[in-house]
Amino acid sequence: MKTLIVGANGKIGKHLVRKIVENGQEARAMIRKEEQASYFEDLGAETVVVDLEDSVESIQKAVEGVDAVVFTAGSGPNTGKDKTILIDLDGAVKTVEAARAANVERFVLVSSFDTSREAIVEAPSSFSPYVAAKRYADVALRNSGLSYTIVHPGILTNDDATGKVSAAEKVQRGEVPREDVAEVLYQTLQTSSTIGKAFQVVSGDTPVKEAVESL
Amino acid sequence: MKTLIVGANGKIGKHLVRKIVENGQEARAMIRKEEQASYFEDLGAETVVVDLEDSVESIQKAVEGVDAVVFTAGSGPNTGKDKTILIDLDGAVKTVEAARAANVERFVLVSSFDTSREAIVEAPSSFSPYVAAKRYADVALRNSGLSYTIVHPGILTNDDATGKVSAAEKVQRGEVPREDVAEVLYQTLQTSSTIGKAFQVVSGDTPVKEAVESL
Repeated sequence: MKTLIVGANGKIGKHLVRKIVENGQEARAMIRKEEQASYFEDLGAETVVVDLEDSVESIQKAVEGVDAVVFTAGSGPNTGKDKTILIDLDGAVKTVEAARAANVERFVLVSSFDTSREAIVEAPSSFSPYVAAKRYADVALRNSGLSYTIVHPGILTNDDATGKVSAAEKVQRGEVPREDVAEVLYQTLQTSSTIGKAFQVVSGDTPVKEAVESL
Repeated sequence: MKTLIVGANGKIGKHLVRKIVENGQEARAMIRKEEQASYFEDLGAETVVVDLEDSVESIQKAVEGVDAVVFTAGSGPNTGKDKTILIDLDGAVKTVEAARAANVERFVLVSSFDTSREAIVEAPSSFSPYVAAKRYADVALRNSGLSYTIVHPGILTNDDATGKVSAAEKVQRGEVPREDVAEVLYQTLQTSSTIGKAFQVVSGDTPVKEAVESL
């Protein structure tokens, strides 16, 4: 199995590429700059340089030949709101369109913790555009016909992985280390029963594999 | 026939409310601030104060009891990009959802001239988030099941109306006075053959009514 990781150079992306390679599977890291490549090549992953602001056709070239796509790119809630639209929303939708065009069925999207209508209104005003962008990316993926899974992580930290999470359609908001999210993504790719599902995930008491398999 | 005009206090909105009332139909102007009401009341229109950043339920109250909705609100390409997401995209989608919830079938959306994939990439970087937001609003309306028309006007000016336009699925980019766009919207509301269509409109040689009826 070969997986394209979009946003590979982010913290979650780096953990995920490493896990995939360590488990003997193939990873293709989609990165924005050539100078980001050596990290992934040293791990034994393929790399492909594409900017999410490029065309669907450019992204499609990166998608061709893989079995699954994980979209974990994000402009983050603190960048300019222009990037929120162009990366978190339009970049995600273009990647979905590219996957469809390349006949890659499996698509795992890292979303925001809560992308409900209420969450947009209730979020701090600086955060609500980000939530809205994430919401419309979720909607586009749900309507795409792809074999999707949408992962809604809690408040991301750089803490060491605990290997244990709480995952369900709705969980209490809380923190979760990025490295644990990467493990959730890895296990999601191995677990076909997650297809067509969306779930929230925070730190918890259940080993990641078990948590994902029981969704 | 009663029409809700969302974004009534904008230049196109004001022209449209006036035209509707002058033609003996009913208009309900959706405005953001109470102090904007007197202008519309003097015209003989109803008013309703709702902020597009409010919930779908709040917008639904404004929609209840009308026969059609025209969405001509816009944060404009020069406001903060947070408003581009929250008004041009999420505000439009919430209004679509409110119309569905209120069983109002007819929905006319004022979009940007070109909301194609290519237009997002080709637009100046300061403008492309706006085009992307408009694109996703268009998509949401197309997928809503409502009796929609999407109007893509050219470069808007405050020139006097000429009463003549060129309207088709694709026309050469050019200018068009806001007052002519308002007339296009008015005629679109009267012309059921525009349902399910999207068209571009710029200044031209054909009287507005004739141009709209021949779409």
